[in-house]
Formats: sequence, structure tokens, C-alpha cells
Amino acid sequence: MAKKDQNADQDTKGITVKKTEDMPEWYTQVCLKAELADYSPIKGCMVIRPNGFALWQAIVDQFNAYLKEDKVQNAYFPLFIPESFFKREAEHAEGFTPEVAWVQNKDDKGERFAIRPTSETIMYDSYGKWIRSWRDLPLRINQWCNIVRWEVQDVKLFLRSREFLWQEGHCVYETDKECHEETLHYLERYRQISEDLLAIPVTLGLKTEREKFAGAIRTYSIESLMPDGKALQMGTSHDLSQGFAKSFEISFQDKEGKHARPWQNSWGISTRMIGAIVLTHGDDKGLIIPPRAALNKVAIVPIIFEDKKDMIIKETEKVGELLSEFNPIVDTRGDYTSGWKFNEYELKGIPLRVEVGPKDIEKKQAVVVRRDTGKKEFIPLDKLKQHITDTLEAMHKNLYDTAKKRIDADIVTVKDFKAFEKAIEDKKMVFTAHCGEDDCELCIKEKTAATSRCIPFKGGEPGSETCVHCDKPAKYKLYFARAY
Amino acid sequence: MAKKDQNADQDTKGITVKKTEDMPEWYTQVCLKAELADYSPIKGCMVIRPNGFALWQAIVDQFNAYLKEDKVQNAYFPLFIPESFFKREAEHAEGFTPEVAWVQNKDDKGERFAIRPTSETIMYDSYGKWIRSWRDLPLRINQWCNIVRWEVQDVKLFLRSREFLWQEGHCVYETDKECHEETLHYLERYRQISEDLLAIPVTLGLKTEREKFAGAIRTYSIESLMPDGKALQMGTSHDLSQGFAKSFEISFQDKEGKHARPWQNSWGISTRMIGAIVLTHGDDKGLIIPPRAALNKVAIVPIIFEDKKDMIIKETEKVGELLSEFNPIVDTRGDYTSGWKFNEYELKGIPLRVEVGPKDIEKKQAVVVRRDTGKKEFIPLDKLKQHITDTLEAMHKNLYDTAKKRIDADIVTVKDFKAFEKAIEDKKMVFTAHCGEDDCELCIKEKTAATSRCIPFKGGEPGSETCVHCDKPAKYKLYFARAY
Repeated sequence: MAKKDQNADQDTKGITVKKTEDMPEWYTQVCLKAELADYSPIKGCMVIRPNGFALWQAIVDQFNAYLKEDKVQNAYFPLFIPESFFKREAEHAEGFTPEVAWVQNKDDKGERFAIRPTSETIMYDSYGKWIRSWRDLPLRINQWCNIVRWEVQDVKLFLRSREFLWQEGHCVYETDKECHEETLHYLERYRQISEDLLAIPVTLGLKTEREKFAGAIRTYSIESLMPDGKALQMGTSHDLSQGFAKSFEISFQDKEGKHARPWQNSWGISTRMIGAIVLTHGDDKGLIIPPRAALNKVAIVPIIFEDKKDMIIKETEKVGELLSEFNPIVDTRGDYTSGWKFNEYELKGIPLRVEVGPKDIEKKQAVVVRRDTGKKEFIPLDKLKQHITDTLEAMHKNLYDTAKKRIDADIVTVKDFKAFEKAIEDKKMVFTAHCGEDDCELCIKEKTAATSRCIPFKGGEPGSETCVHCDKPAKYKLYFARAY
Repeated sequence: MAKKDQNADQDTKGITVKKTEDMPEWYTQVCLKAELADYSPIKGCMVIRPNGFALWQAIVDQFNAYLKEDKVQNAYFPLFIPESFFKREAEHAEGFTPEVAWVQNKDDKGERFAIRPTSETIMYDSYGKWIRSWRDLPLRINQWCNIVRWEVQDVKLFLRSREFLWQEGHCVYETDKECHEETLHYLERYRQISEDLLAIPVTLGLKTEREKFAGAIRTYSIESLMPDGKALQMGTSHDLSQGFAKSFEISFQDKEGKHARPWQNSWGISTRMIGAIVLTHGDDKGLIIPPRAALNKVAIVPIIFEDKKDMIIKETEKVGELLSEFNPIVDTRGDYTSGWKFNEYELKGIPLRVEVGPKDIEKKQAVVVRRDTGKKEFIPLDKLKQHITDTLEAMHKNLYDTAKKRIDADIVTVKDFKAFEKAIEDKKMVFTAHCGEDDCELCIKEKTAATSRCIPFKGGEPGSETCVHCDKPAKYKLYFARAY
């Protein structure tokens, strides 16, 4: 075996705390040591390192493929928003003003500019110019960009930072019906990203009036539950109705030649999804990348014996070629031990490890080790490709099922407020009935630090139940939890 | 034929000025009417519309493929840069300070933040933390992001604006040699993007001391010449030597265990390349998209006769399926005339038009019309795919050759300053000998508004010539022109 390299060992000491013991510390260590992200010298900001960016790129690529199917086009609007634009839609302005960073430099007229905390206003100003006729509709535009919300002080890598990356889709329709249908369609796209790409189970539902987007008539969201009992909003889709269209004077000539007001939606997902990947799938050894989102699906490590070194490296490279469709890391470096490499790729969450040693070469086989279960199998080379394809899919399913089981176990249905409080204290998500009153919901938040998550599409009907907090007749059933 | 649609006609009146008569006005009309971009309510900023963004995406996709080959990884660093970082590298600070937009919100210590005009300082601060050993090198990171240079007042769509999109690559090496070689390698990548993807001929060379990047020891660039006689810098690659490494305390332990200082380069291309596409290839009818960069390489237009409408549309859709690899626009809309559609796709620069009329269907053929030459050919359906593949390649070559011929004709070699001045007045690019003195170069700029473009890799040797302006012995030969 190759000699142990002291420096190398020091570089990658693993995660020093167990996930269940101190999840915030564990989370930070995984983000830093798997080189997903780093802190920045600017308070509240983060650096997304290549390993983290590759996860974002996987989301971008898949979502761009959906956008193409859905006839949504990408574009780019300015980073800066004139202050006067913010004021045009009253609720929107009120909702976002506290979060805004302003540019010191002003324009000729002394107007100051916000750095976009979201782009409705700057985009809809252009929409007002572009849309003339029913022929211009539906207009479906998306942009991938950076977003700044200045109020964040204590950065939580990926989950909360002053600047983050996202996509924001902004569509305009002739009819309310079309608008409503597509608002829900993009929410379904987010479910696909979350569940089908990232293996993170989510609940789809409607936000309460209290929690909806500033300027929307209805906000839908996909919500997941992290292993620390905190809910994570993974994506939102807003039915904006005609509010912004009025404020930004967007109108069109309909098929009968009449002047009409269009309907709008907006919807977004962000780099916080990367945080959800870490929290949902990671373990005491580090990150586990859901296989469909992994840039490198396999790490191939030779077991090097000095006397057969050249032969082993050559055979390892052959296995690399065989598995090229999985974009493998072929790590034939001589100055790291194979044990060091095993730890390294476990820490970084590469879905499968393939080992190639002298005995394997003799037997025309390779060793395949799953990152999620640790299961080790000896696979003949002529069956290796198929085995890896199958195992990656099995791993996706296992990650999803494991998370689903955990989430289901962490949701508690309660009918009285004592049980509600206890469940929240026990780091559970609560499913319960509510009166739908804003004050009552605020009161729950003040008492428990839990916020309403969503009224699920399935099971949100109130039946004959009464509000868990005030005993008035319930308007709906919904989820509550403390949240990121 | 379908009835003429008055509204539709009004929407797309073509370019109303000839390219040769008023190029600035022509340029703006093409950008606006081909829906590449629009002005924004924020002075100096622009909106990149879907057609413009698709061109940028083509550049991004091709360049990302090169980055993968070159083992450069994408990442994302903060938008904000602390003022103190700017001051660490003196030349860099001096070069960029006038251009910077500052954020009004400050940090706890009262320090203000710049909005990145380029990211050397914020990235190298992280590099200083990450790089420890020779094993960490080379470090090759790229980011795609938005950039702000506030001094721009009068936006020239794509060519000059307060905010633009770009990529910036930032690499760190063990040796000067490796750094230098790769600095030139990325310049070659830019030549590939410009010439092989966009069909825009460029000259590769070295910037003078006066024109180099603030903080580099050498800046290389690719330079093209637009049809109005203005030069356009299409991309730059900077050899930063060890200046930033010193300012940001980047060091590593080399193979002998000694403390060493690494070498760095940085390199970038931006959305101004889209402006170069418009200027270089466009004509009096509008945009011409170089075929390799076209999202939709073909527009298929049925020639509809009312009595055979359904059959014609059905056959047109079949042709659309046949040509699916070219991502065609299949425009079977009934409320626009085919003539209107022809104008529309010419204005928008779709490389090829395929017409499907009743006679063509009878003869099992289609009509193919080239956007660059207007040449019309009748092609049997069973040869259509191959014909289109070949024609797109021929079109790329023709666009490149046409531009090359025009540029070559617009470069004038001069030996005395009177000829220099005349050539610049005549909107030519000048090739001449220069002493290499900064003051002399500045003097030329003040007299003629021409700046030095680059000392070409081929033909830049001074021979025994003297400076075109001051008659001192020449240090090199180089290009001068007025520039964007």
C-alpha cells in the first residue's frame, strides 16, 4: 500500500459531530468540509464553491428542460429597481421595504435604486410596453439571477443569506383560468425538482393569507420537513391576479378588439434547495448527493500495491472509460492512500464508489459500494454498467423513501393547543385545524415560534372541527412548524 | 391566401434605415425590432429579451463545454466587495474606483461595499484561505455573473451599459510558465467562441501598457473591427503575475515543503459579444444569426391556400418533425400572411427559411431560402436534412469570409502621422509602428480619438521602423482605431 500522507490526512479530517447530536454544527461542517460553500468577508453573504455550484447547475439544467417544454423563455432584467416602482403596488412595497439594499449613487433626478429583492416591478414595467394584443399572450419569461435581501445578518449557508441565486418566472395570461392552472403547473414542476431530482419529499399546498407573498392573491408552496423538525419552504408559486397589471398599466386588445386587463403569476426556487439536500440526506460521514443530481455519479479508486502499481492504474483507467457515461472521478493519485480517498468521497457524497484491486482485476470484477447504505458488492465487469445504472436508481428511491418515512413519523395530528405546543417543543410538524383568522395565527406564532406552512391540496378540508387555538369553527386544516 | 392582418403588420414594420447610411440608428432598430434587448427605466441599464438571451445562452453553453475540457469549475462569489479589499491592490483600485457603484447600507463597522465591477479582490480573499499546498494547484474557477460599472450614462445596447453579464475565470498556478501558457490558452478559447461559433474574425494580441487591465502585468485581447470602422474588444485574458497573490496573501507549500507564492491569471467575455454579432452580420433587413449560435436554425412557413389549408398545415408539421434536430419554428398561424412571416424571420435573423406550398407538397419538395444570400433552392424532402446541415455550414463560412474580407479591406498600414490621421478620419483601422511610450500613445488618442488595440502575435515586430507619431525607434507594430 502507498505510504500514508500526513499532510493529506490533516486536510480532510471528517465531520467531528454526529448529525443527531448537534445538527446546526453538523450542517455547517458538511457545507464547509464537502466544499459546498464558504463564509464570505461580507456579513450575511456566502461563497458557493464548485461542489455546491454543481448541485445548483443540476437544478438549473433540469428546470431549463422543463421551461423549454412549457414554452417559457429565459431573459435578463436589471439588478436595479427605481424606488418609485416599489411604491406602485402598495402591499408589495410594504412587504419588501425592510429587506432592501439601496445604491448610494442616484440618478439625475435624485431617485435612488433598490438592489432587486425580487423583480416583479422592474419586469412588469417592460411588460406594460411589450404587451399590446391577445397575440402577445401568454407571455412566459424566466430569469436566473442573484437576489439581495439585506435584513439577513447571520448567514446560514444556503438557507439564509443576504444574497442568493434563484430563478423567477413571470407569466401573463388572457384569462384567470389559464393563469390559475399554470400557477399550479409550476408548483408541480417544483415538486418534480424536489422529489424526482433531489429525492426530497414535499407537501403541496396553499399559504395562509398571513404567509402569502406581498402582492399575490394566493401563494402556493412546496414544503418539506428537515430532520431537526424545522420546515423548509422549497419553492413558491404566486397567483398575482390583476393587481400588478393595474399598477403597471399592463393591458391588451382582446380578440373582440376590446381593451382588457391580463392575469399574472410569478414563481421561484433558489439555492436554499442545496441546504435541503444536505439536511435531508446527509449522515455522520458527510454529504450524500441524490444520484440524479450528482455531477460525478461514481468515484473510482484503485487499491494500489507498489509491485503492481502500473498495471492497477491502467486497469482502473479502463474501468473509468467503461463508466464514462457516469462522469466518474478516476482517482489514481499516488500520494493519497485508498483509505484517505474512501473518506474523501464519502464526505463529499459521491453516490457510488468503485474499487479496483489486484484480486478484482484477476477475477474481472470491481467492488461497488453505495454511499447511502454502505452496502458492498462484487460485480463482474461485463455487468458493471447495468449494475451502476440500477443501483443509482435504487439509491434515489431509498433516499426518497427514507426521508418520506422520517417526515411522516415527524408529523403529528393534534386537536388541542396543549398537544400543539408539546409537539412543537418536541420538534414535530403539526397538522391541525384552524379558524383562518390572521390574529389567531399570529398568536400561535408568538406562543410557539411555529408558523403556518400550507393548507395541503389533499386533506385540507376542515370537516366539522374547531380551531386548535381559539375553538371557533375551522376554516381549513393545515401544517404548522418552526421553519428556516 | 389568409387575409392581411392590419394589427400584425403594424407590429413588425421592418428596419427603416440602411445599415451603411446611419449605422447607430440601424443598430438600435435591429436590437429593438428583433427583440434582442430593450431600454430600461434605469439610465444606463438594459433589458436582455429572450431572443438576445438565447444568443448569450449559445455562448454560455459552448464556453461551458470548453471549461469542462479545461478542468475549470464554475462557482459563485458575492456581489458585494468591501471597500478595504479594493485598496489592497493599488493599481487595481485606481483603475476601477471611478466606475464603482456603492451600497448605501453599511456593515456594523461602517465599512461600505462596492457592487462588483470585477471580482479579483473578493475571489482572491477566498483563494488565500483555500490554497495551502501544491496539491491545491492549479486552482481553476470561473463564474457567470452580472457586473456593474456605474460611469456609463448613455447606454448602447449590449456594447456599453451600467450592468452587463459576463464570465470571469480566475486561475492560480505553481509556476509562471504554466500561468503564461494558460493565459494564452483562454485567449485562444475566446478566438474559438468568436470565430468558430459566431463567425466574427478577430486579431489576437497584446495590449500596450497604457491599455492593460489595472493590476495585470500583461493583458491579451481578441479584437475585431465593426463595419462602422470602430474596433470592438471581444475578450481579454490577463496575466496577473504575483501582484494580487501578494496583496491577498495567497501562498502554498511547494513539493519541497517550502513556502511559495503562486501565479495568477483572469479572463473574461461578456454580453457585448451580442452587439458584435448584430454589427458584423446584420443587413438592411435586420439581424443575421450565425447558424452555429442560432437556437432556431430554421423557420418553416406554409404557403396557405384556404381550400387546401388543413392538408398544407399537416404537411408543414411533418416537415417540422423531419427537421426537429434544427429546433425549427413551425409557424402555421392562420392570422398572419406568409409574406408577413417571411419579413418577421428575416428581421429576427433565423438562418434558413423553409417554405411548404401546395406545389411543393405535390412534388415532395420544400423551398429553402438562405438568410445571408437570399438564395432560394427547391430541395427534395428526402435530401432536405442533409441539405440544411450543409447549407448552415456554408452560411457560417460565408458570414466569416464576408466579414474577414471587409475587415482586411478596412485595415490600412501607415508610416506617417498624416496618413494615420486621414485613415482614422476615413473610419479605418490603422496598422503602424510605435515607440511604446505612454505619453506618445496618449497624444495620439487626444489628436485622433483612436486608441491602441493590440500588438498582434503575428507581425508585431518593429523591424527597423520608427514611431508613426514621434519618430523615435519603434518598439512594436500594432493596431489603432476608434473603439466601442
